[in-house]
Amino acid sequence: MSSMIKGIAASAGIAIAKSFRLEHPDLTVEKQTISDKDAEIKRFEEAINQSKDELEVIKNRANEELGEDKAAIFSAHLLVLSDPELLNPIKDKISSESVNAEFALQEVANMFITMFEGMDNEYMAERAADIRDVTKRVLAHLLGVTISNPSMISEEVIIIAEDLTPSDTAQLNRKYVKGFTTDIGGRTSHSAIMARSMEIPAVVGTKAVTSTIQNGVMVIVDGLDGDVIVDPSEEVLAQYRQKKEQYEAQKAEWAKLKNEKTVTSDGEHVELAANIGTPEDVKGVLENGGEAIGLYRTEFLYMGRDQLPTEEEQFDAYKTVLEKMEGKPVVVRTLDIGGDKELPYLNLPKELNPFLGFRAIRLCLEEQDIFRTQLRALLRASTFGNLKIMFPMIATLDEFRQAKAILMEEKEKLVASGTAVSDSIEIGIMVEIPSTAVLADQFAKEVDFFSIGTNDLIQYTMAADRMNERVSYLYQPYSPSILRLVSMVIEAAHKEGKWAGMCGEMAGDTIAIPILLGLGLDEFSMSATSILPARTQIKKLSKAEIASNKEKILSMSTTEEVVEFIKANYMN
Amino acid sequence: MSSMIKGIAASAGIAIAKSFRLEHPDLTVEKQTISDKDAEIKRFEEAINQSKDELEVIKNRANEELGEDKAAIFSAHLLVLSDPELLNPIKDKISSESVNAEFALQEVANMFITMFEGMDNEYMAERAADIRDVTKRVLAHLLGVTISNPSMISEEVIIIAEDLTPSDTAQLNRKYVKGFTTDIGGRTSHSAIMARSMEIPAVVGTKAVTSTIQNGVMVIVDGLDGDVIVDPSEEVLAQYRQKKEQYEAQKAEWAKLKNEKTVTSDGEHVELAANIGTPEDVKGVLENGGEAIGLYRTEFLYMGRDQLPTEEEQFDAYKTVLEKMEGKPVVVRTLDIGGDKELPYLNLPKELNPFLGFRAIRLCLEEQDIFRTQLRALLRASTFGNLKIMFPMIATLDEFRQAKAILMEEKEKLVASGTAVSDSIEIGIMVEIPSTAVLADQFAKEVDFFSIGTNDLIQYTMAADRMNERVSYLYQPYSPSILRLVSMVIEAAHKEGKWAGMCGEMAGDTIAIPILLGLGLDEFSMSATSILPARTQIKKLSKAEIASNKEKILSMSTTEEVVEFIKANYMN
Repeated sequence: MSSMIKGIAASAGIAIAKSFRLEHPDLTVEKQTISDKDAEIKRFEEAINQSKDELEVIKNRANEELGEDKAAIFSAHLLVLSDPELLNPIKDKISSESVNAEFALQEVANMFITMFEGMDNEYMAERAADIRDVTKRVLAHLLGVTISNPSMISEEVIIIAEDLTPSDTAQLNRKYVKGFTTDIGGRTSHSAIMARSMEIPAVVGTKAVTSTIQNGVMVIVDGLDGDVIVDPSEEVLAQYRQKKEQYEAQKAEWAKLKNEKTVTSDGEHVELAANIGTPEDVKGVLENGGEAIGLYRTEFLYMGRDQLPTEEEQFDAYKTVLEKMEGKPVVVRTLDIGGDKELPYLNLPKELNPFLGFRAIRLCLEEQDIFRTQLRALLRASTFGNLKIMFPMIATLDEFRQAKAILMEEKEKLVASGTAVSDSIEIGIMVEIPSTAVLADQFAKEVDFFSIGTNDLIQYTMAADRMNERVSYLYQPYSPSILRLVSMVIEAAHKEGKWAGMCGEMAGDTIAIPILLGLGLDEFSMSATSILPARTQIKKLSKAEIASNKEKILSMSTTEEVVEFIKANYMN
Repeated sequence: MSSMIKGIAASAGIAIAKSFRLEHPDLTVEKQTISDKDAEIKRFEEAINQSKDELEVIKNRANEELGEDKAAIFSAHLLVLSDPELLNPIKDKISSESVNAEFALQEVANMFITMFEGMDNEYMAERAADIRDVTKRVLAHLLGVTISNPSMISEEVIIIAEDLTPSDTAQLNRKYVKGFTTDIGGRTSHSAIMARSMEIPAVVGTKAVTSTIQNGVMVIVDGLDGDVIVDPSEEVLAQYRQKKEQYEAQKAEWAKLKNEKTVTSDGEHVELAANIGTPEDVKGVLENGGEAIGLYRTEFLYMGRDQLPTEEEQFDAYKTVLEKMEGKPVVVRTLDIGGDKELPYLNLPKELNPFLGFRAIRLCLEEQDIFRTQLRALLRASTFGNLKIMFPMIATLDEFRQAKAILMEEKEKLVASGTAVSDSIEIGIMVEIPSTAVLADQFAKEVDFFSIGTNDLIQYTMAADRMNERVSYLYQPYSPSILRLVSMVIEAAHKEGKWAGMCGEMAGDTIAIPILLGLGLDEFSMSATSILPARTQIKKLSKAEIASNKEKILSMSTTEEVVEFIKANYMN
């Protein structure tokens, strides 16, 4: 029966397809005594072979669709499944103890996992993780249950999940995943950002999709209004197909602006840039008429894997992005790990308040090996395009000076060794900590540019975790306090002849765009899909006219006042 | 052998006494088969009687020294020890199963605890907690190990602990506890604040005292320099006795200023107030010449107990403080719970980032019953002195307006019912969230006063958890960004004819005092023991002269620059 679930519109568009539940089945094993040992061993061998076949398919698909990097893990899994040191003890156990294959597998695998994990050696810890993954797959075959293989999806689907982790999304294939919807999360959660980057409609924070939607049911995800329709009637389907067409038509209108500059009605140019996570995202940036990349989140290079990326791997990724952008600016943010973004292989200690903890530049200044490797890769790639480097989570000038000094050291070393490095790399910072916004005039003397990271700036300025639903009412981008800080940063930059951009979600927001234009923001970096709508909007706005209301807006006392004023004056 | 441990000087003064380890011994129980059942039952009964005797003593002492409130818990424990429904099944188990008393006690107690906790009923959950506590005490007697009873200390000691929890400190008797030293914590941790409030020397964050210092060893805690000396030689003892005397002499000098106003060398008066946690702290405020109470932390009324305090209990506490202060201002902060301050009986959900979570006014605006009860108690107490009410963690004007509206509603209801309420209660806010500092000019139109809470303001402005050692380098009170925000708040207040105070640790800091004076701060609220040294310092400073350097200080770019300038110009 048809039903509608309300959620948060996280990525625009309409998707219509069958549901695919991304889930983790129950793999609980019970010990059983078996009578036919040979049959049991055969059953075990069959499960191994099925798992191998499955992994081969997954590996090949991952290779084609996601690249060699992502596929490597599956080769490791295949090796485990051919290892007699693991397989023989399991068969021995089945025949000597007359136990079922599931139990024998689990007992032997756990022994290896415990042993490897106990070795306090990174390589062995990875082997333990491989065995754990493979064991799950074989167990699933033995138990006759299905585990989700997002990389194996081969028909158009809408993903239904409690939430999507970075490693889930790393395996999603854009060709088949038409949309997704989750139980938890908000507009700035990882899954929402990924949906916009993948340009697929998404509705998050529904609280209900996994408990409501079975596998294989027809689902409509309306990422414009935040609705999920389950098992729609023909009438409803027709209605949404029409809505989808209208949206596609609007997109086609927007597309006409693809190769235009972004110019206001009074002739002022601003730069519309895109936020990306991987080299594959560049295609979407160019298709959507991005004038630059305003934020390249390098974390994804470090995530969904079991060891640090090498300098070469990083160099390749940076070079690819720079080359594909053909001389357009590419702002690369150095590693922003910690907080909600953990790397299992770094073994960071658990923190009481990770958002106020040891992350990003704080970690990089201490773990300098990691930082220097990334900087070398960036410096070496710098000659392949228009690279700008920016440091995240800078709170004091000392931190910026230290980070810049390390970058300069690595540059000198490379140059001394005969490696070409560009001499025109701009070095800037994210402004996402209130301290830095307040001291922007001092920073502006030393940095080449600012990029305001509103997601974090808002949460620190309001002292409210943006992921915590009980205080999410305090996540107020249009609060006059936020606007004042943004204005301080822009003014400070201009006074020193520097530029100021923004790479938080706010930069692509239709209410924020007129305000930011009036405050003088130079660069707006957003999801690629927001660029053309933003360009359309900006072409109709007069920068000077909004700027004439700047003091009025900045002296308002609440978010409501600001929103009312903008809606009444700058939105039709 | 004598040794010295370095830590953080958390509360000034020198303490010399025997060590007292506050610890939780190993109460692991092994099942044993016993032969003489009657002897075992007798052994159990003896342990019960010893526990009862001990609890009677603790209860009486708590009654005398800490008040009836704190003593009530021990009456509950005594009741448990007389309950045949608990005792008989244990004796039965010993005789029917021939097991040792420890095992029988633990099995039966666990059964009751599990049963009571499973009932999802607050009262029964408390009973479970009582049984758990009492079981530990009886087990300790059976096992012949000692559990720490801080309320039982009857000779002069120095407490050695990993850390002190609020419930530990609630039981400490100032008469005997001469000082303390802990493994963890910093200058703004709970134990450090308590030490200053109790006016006893403390050294925290030593990382080593519990692993180094045995019970009953002579220890010197040097809260001036942050040193802990273990088992000192006669020579060292003599040296520290002299240092102690010098410090006492200096204190005596300070004491001469006790009844003086705080006036700068150029004749400007500022108010030196104290931060308190309980009515008992008022004595120390008056003895140290406090001109006001700038922060009455009402949380302690809610802590170390198993249910909310009633309106009457609160009324009594507020009235007591107001009366004892004899018309001097008393700024009461409404409930600031959440974050690192949990109340077990409120069942608050665990949060990923509690410091950015559902706490203080955010909680009070939702749990209005709790908030209204406190406001009624405050309003009723208002006629007994000079009450000012302040709301914590205000981030938006909306929140302030809501909180004030609730206060006004309760006032009207009380007045309508014939209860006297003062008409001159000032209503202010804590400024501890960057947003509020940035918007201070808007807030100043509606509040009666500001009190800057620097502990939180600094941690949010720098996005660094002050309890997290890995980022503690970012807790920079003298950062120009913090000073700018403080200056904005003071200027905003003065422009509207309001006053601005400060109740964070910074207000009593010798480097900060000259700066704050120059920025125009009206009220400095600090640990009572810091008042007289601060008065001494301020009498030598010219407010106008420092103010002439205000722009210079505010345009510095790093903490180091500020500290150097202050040290060179305003400290001798």
